[in-house]
Amino acid sequence: MKPLKVIFQPSGKRGEIQEGKTVLEASRELGVGIESLCGGKQTCGKCRVKILEGEFSPFSQEEGKWIGESEREGGIRLACSARILKDAVIFIPEESLAQIQIIRKRISERPVELNPTIKSYFVKLTPPSFYDLSGDFERLQKTLSDAHSLPPLHIDYPALSKLTKVLREGDWEVTVFVWMDREILDVKPKNNVKVSGLAIDIGTTTIAGYLCDLKTGELIATQSMMNPQVIYGEDVISRITFAMDHPDGLQILHQAVINGLNQLIQLITESSNTSPEDIYELTVVGNTAMHHLFLGIDPQPLGVSPFPPAIHQSMDIKGRDLRLKIHPSANVHILPIEAGFVGADNVGVLLALEPYNQDDMVLIIDVGTNGELVIGNRNHLLSASCAIGPALEGAHIQFGMRAAQGAIERIEISPKNFEVNYEVIGNSKPRGICGSGIIDGVAELYRAGIIDSSGRFKKEIRSPRLRWINEKPEFVIAWKEETSIGKDIVITQKDIRNVQLAKAALYAGAKLMMKKLGIEKLDKVILAGAFGAYIHPEKAMILGMFPDCDLKNVFSVGNAAGEGARIVLLNKEKRLEANEIVKKIKYVELTLEIDFQREFVEAMDIPHMRDSFPHLHLYRQ
Amino acid sequence: MKPLKVIFQPSGKRGEIQEGKTVLEASRELGVGIESLCGGKQTCGKCRVKILEGEFSPFSQEEGKWIGESEREGGIRLACSARILKDAVIFIPEESLAQIQIIRKRISERPVELNPTIKSYFVKLTPPSFYDLSGDFERLQKTLSDAHSLPPLHIDYPALSKLTKVLREGDWEVTVFVWMDREILDVKPKNNVKVSGLAIDIGTTTIAGYLCDLKTGELIATQSMMNPQVIYGEDVISRITFAMDHPDGLQILHQAVINGLNQLIQLITESSNTSPEDIYELTVVGNTAMHHLFLGIDPQPLGVSPFPPAIHQSMDIKGRDLRLKIHPSANVHILPIEAGFVGADNVGVLLALEPYNQDDMVLIIDVGTNGELVIGNRNHLLSASCAIGPALEGAHIQFGMRAAQGAIERIEISPKNFEVNYEVIGNSKPRGICGSGIIDGVAELYRAGIIDSSGRFKKEIRSPRLRWINEKPEFVIAWKEETSIGKDIVITQKDIRNVQLAKAALYAGAKLMMKKLGIEKLDKVILAGAFGAYIHPEKAMILGMFPDCDLKNVFSVGNAAGEGARIVLLNKEKRLEANEIVKKIKYVELTLEIDFQREFVEAMDIPHMRDSFPHLHLYRQ
Repeated sequence: MKPLKVIFQPSGKRGEIQEGKTVLEASRELGVGIESLCGGKQTCGKCRVKILEGEFSPFSQEEGKWIGESEREGGIRLACSARILKDAVIFIPEESLAQIQIIRKRISERPVELNPTIKSYFVKLTPPSFYDLSGDFERLQKTLSDAHSLPPLHIDYPALSKLTKVLREGDWEVTVFVWMDREILDVKPKNNVKVSGLAIDIGTTTIAGYLCDLKTGELIATQSMMNPQVIYGEDVISRITFAMDHPDGLQILHQAVINGLNQLIQLITESSNTSPEDIYELTVVGNTAMHHLFLGIDPQPLGVSPFPPAIHQSMDIKGRDLRLKIHPSANVHILPIEAGFVGADNVGVLLALEPYNQDDMVLIIDVGTNGELVIGNRNHLLSASCAIGPALEGAHIQFGMRAAQGAIERIEISPKNFEVNYEVIGNSKPRGICGSGIIDGVAELYRAGIIDSSGRFKKEIRSPRLRWINEKPEFVIAWKEETSIGKDIVITQKDIRNVQLAKAALYAGAKLMMKKLGIEKLDKVILAGAFGAYIHPEKAMILGMFPDCDLKNVFSVGNAAGEGARIVLLNKEKRLEANEIVKKIKYVELTLEIDFQREFVEAMDIPHMRDSFPHLHLYRQ
Repeated sequence: MKPLKVIFQPSGKRGEIQEGKTVLEASRELGVGIESLCGGKQTCGKCRVKILEGEFSPFSQEEGKWIGESEREGGIRLACSARILKDAVIFIPEESLAQIQIIRKRISERPVELNPTIKSYFVKLTPPSFYDLSGDFERLQKTLSDAHSLPPLHIDYPALSKLTKVLREGDWEVTVFVWMDREILDVKPKNNVKVSGLAIDIGTTTIAGYLCDLKTGELIATQSMMNPQVIYGEDVISRITFAMDHPDGLQILHQAVINGLNQLIQLITESSNTSPEDIYELTVVGNTAMHHLFLGIDPQPLGVSPFPPAIHQSMDIKGRDLRLKIHPSANVHILPIEAGFVGADNVGVLLALEPYNQDDMVLIIDVGTNGELVIGNRNHLLSASCAIGPALEGAHIQFGMRAAQGAIERIEISPKNFEVNYEVIGNSKPRGICGSGIIDGVAELYRAGIIDSSGRFKKEIRSPRLRWINEKPEFVIAWKEETSIGKDIVITQKDIRNVQLAKAALYAGAKLMMKKLGIEKLDKVILAGAFGAYIHPEKAMILGMFPDCDLKNVFSVGNAAGEGARIVLLNKEKRLEANEIVKKIKYVELTLEIDFQREFVEAMDIPHMRDSFPHLHLYRQ
């Protein structure tokens, strides 16, 4: 097949691609970002493009679900469906352009007792003579043992190969970098004190890095970026599917995250006047799929019942074996995995929040593309995973979008006149609604009495904002004049239904876990996860995302998973604690619980069909 | 500087090189082999070439030492001295062409108790279910523990990344390859039994490989090749100099030996219907300089008193870290080093010959470019190193050459008429004399009464073969009509002197070590080393290479160092034995012994100035 010329507008990016590729595939090859929340499975309708020139495969039935007759005549297609058959010019509308997400991955900087894996020792050696002919390494070994009582050490190959030169360059005064009192990672001439470590949280959507000084424990720099895998699928399942459906899929996804990390390492070190070679240790958290793809492990079994991971236990791998551009002898520590869908990120959350050291019975909800639940205290600890889908992150929502410039993130609706106040990220005109916005929106619709507890729009409400299109109701959050996309931004009945499905899964999960523990009330609720920090606790409770709790004891925390990675970076004993947690925590497979279906249905109501919320004070109803 | 066109004849090889490079450097860049025993230091005179066209740097004083007036007028230059200033055509005469050496590195195949580092286990796993959610690795771990009582294992990263796929491909029946009961190196579907290992001897001149089946212990294939570093210098010292004098010298030498090993691995696996990926373990011996260059360690300190090595102890390094093209998780085990110049090759020799398990007092002479001596039995063990230079290998000898096609390897001289019988490698016309030939030659000159015990030619001898050129005597071994180079092949007074210097160093070393042990006679003498096997024991004793011993108990063995590498490949317990030997053996620095100079001078005589050789029966004298 001969290559075709393809031009993307408005960027003007162009290049050659093979005949028969979809517009989406072409955009990836040419480095053009088209929004594709479902990863090209024709199930999200977000990748709409306008054909300006060229010949394409026939309009498909799936496309018909998303694209109306008149749009179709205007040349609108789904990028994931239309295959390019002749040279083409394709226009990507504003709403289909993949945006740079506003990265929200701050962590708390709770002080951590400093006890890193890397220690450096400045030593002075006696030079060799005919009366002391021992080798350079044995000489160093002996000095370390005499001066610092270190046990016999192994020396990593790159350090060994430079040892001879460095000892003489330093005139027999050198700094030795030792890992875990076990292995020499480097030797540098004279007194050299720079030792950094990097904690990494590989999220499905966002990768965050926290650069720390391992001599002081100080957080030197924070850097986040989109997970470059996003262009191959928005959520975990679509990535697993991509890896299965493409011969090189696994390799592509693995390479994408490694390249991304190397970029992040470049950025974070440049921003802080350090060098990648100063990073002697890297700690990694991530959900099970991210963990597997980071390690180049086939994630396919994670998509098939009973979802076993490739490995539970924590791992130490040389960064060079992963082609990470840090110190050539640096170790990469990957936190352990609890169960198929409760990954190393959740272990990070637990380390950061330490429910196992508390008397209070706490519920931790790590809200992301997947929902991870932990309930427990010092006596008991249960974990579970809910397939909540990406609705709470803004996907599967008609005007849903990521937390990027132009996203409505806060909504208030007056119960009196149904007028709407909203806040937009970047203070620009809105072009969609992000996760915290949609939670606010649905909660406010309920509080204002516009929808009933089953989530249905009330027919009796009279407001220009509530309208019926083909018998399907929707509520206008922003009029088209206010927006940057020239369309009314609305919340539809289907959007509300999707939010209900997600929150019901979380609620039912929490309820079942409470039952298992024989408890009736929660002492504390913590909303964690990159976007958990932006959820309004009261709105979430109005919605019924979790069982009743005193609102004073409902907290949003930042990126607790990333915080966990920072903790094990700074204190190696915490790695043992992580392994203990994994042994202690009991994983509950919710889909196997016979009550799950009933609890789920009851939790569909806002806030719930039967449970009472004594701590909730609604303005109405 | 603009590139110049250079053509080498008779091969016709051509290419571009930078102005100002020497002919030798140009030949290396263009892959033309010019003999260069001294490595370009203008001290051997072996790299004579004939200029056909072009302009070169002026004739140097050094060249004058090797090239006579009439030769000079004929365009003869030393390749290491003449720098190319204009496009050139250069002819390389037969005698200056680097030859493919006849590789003589056979080892004995003494049975070794099989106890390799790699064991493979065929196991059947129970597939995961909702009632057994453990990870793939933990599942494998448990099966190995239940079925084979293996302790908790580490899994190497490449094996981990494929585990998930392989378990399912094999339908939960897999073969696991475990190193040292410690680390999983690979997992393959179903029952897979191929496990090979490769023992490597990196000699200064020759690299030899011995491929073994680690399931049966069988020697599958043997392969040898020139050490590709030879073009950068013939002996250890000239390589160290090369590494010092060139900015990338160390890297060039390191890369050369790694490339060479990868070639050897390719050849040896092709010849035996195995694959490089079947090699799970590689063991390496070599002298200290070869050891360092193999590991990319700066060898400079080995050239400077007190010659400390970078490391004594044995090492285990992943083959991938050395860029060796074998199994990606294969381990490379490098034997320990005794002292600066008594390297891992000597440890290999000791493992092969086991003097430490014998009552007999044995002298082991490992003859190579360097001479390594061991004397001892089960009670005592001394080692030493003699800088004998490469004379015994045929260098620094007027017509010396490597053991290649056309080399005279055996010489007999009739004491009656001084006629000469010789044997030539490959049964072709001779073009030089190799190591065993020169030992034979000098011993026979003495036995025939042509030279006296001081090594001087006797003036009273009347033979057309003994002639004086400018008062300098030489003895014709082969008349020019018999040779392939159109010149008489002779042994000169200087050649004899060089052989005497070498043998005196060995003798004096052995004598001093005997004194240290308080012994007066040897029970056994073993000549080891690649070319040790080709030395005629009686001729060596006539020459006085070692103190008197019953000729019945003087043995030539093959490549004992390589045999040692094979032993530790097949039996991991022998690695502990190697480390024990290194601790047990006492290294004697001969140059520090006050008697050394006197012993050396006395040993210059043939066979010796004072010591008697009751076991030697000379035909004359």
